[in-house]
Amino acid sequence: MTDLTLAFDDNEYLPAVAQDAASGEVLMLAYVTEEALEKTRETGYAHYYSRSRDELWKKGGTSGHTQEIEEVRVDCDGDALLYLVDQSGGACHTGYESCFYRTVDGEEVGKQVFDPDDVY
Amino acid sequence: MTDLTLAFDDNEYLPAVAQDAASGEVLMLAYVTEEALEKTRETGYAHYYSRSRDELWKKGGTSGHTQEIEEVRVDCDGDALLYLVDQSGGACHTGYESCFYRTVDGEEVGKQVFDPDDVY
Repeated sequence: MTDLTLAFDDNEYLPAVAQDAASGEVLMLAYVTEEALEKTRETGYAHYYSRSRDELWKKGGTSGHTQEIEEVRVDCDGDALLYLVDQSGGACHTGYESCFYRTVDGEEVGKQVFDPDDVY
Repeated sequence: MTDLTLAFDDNEYLPAVAQDAASGEVLMLAYVTEEALEKTRETGYAHYYSRSRDELWKKGGTSGHTQEIEEVRVDCDGDALLYLVDQSGGACHTGYESCFYRTVDGEEVGKQVFDPDDVY
């Protein structure tokens, strides 16, 4: 197996979708650099790149809500990644299991699994 | 319910992840403009914006492999969308059910559901 060519964008980012490998729930969308992807594959834990803080970060580094990697997939044109993960705690800093806890109409449909005041 | 504020990027794009509402499979990642999102909500079928062709497109407009919308979700910081869809045929132009049909090591893990030569 050879690694596929990845189409990082002009800023050297690729979007990565994290999905709970067990429940199938889509947890979050964040960005990776080549270095963040390497760290992810090397350590077996999801790493991303914060575009606002301009730094590599390990998911759960502060909260303990890590994402253990089961598989990393790439899409047909190599410009998006899918992380299949085993999520500890909740993925969202708001305490919800998934960052996608609301419909676009503002209705809450997600499940809160921790109290952010206890964690951060 | 009021609509949430969406954080379109500097190019007026937002990434949108399409997930099969029945199987939970993550099908693709594409981008929307405000107009593409409006079309999606108005028609009940997934629309995206092609950054390379610089145009609004209806998913399945050519192939017939449309995505009927069950729900549109937005993430915590309003900069990503999740389309929960009923996918006709396969989502990927390669004939696979999902665009994420390979691991990053190049191993094929997805299921081919149509022959692209028959469709395009």
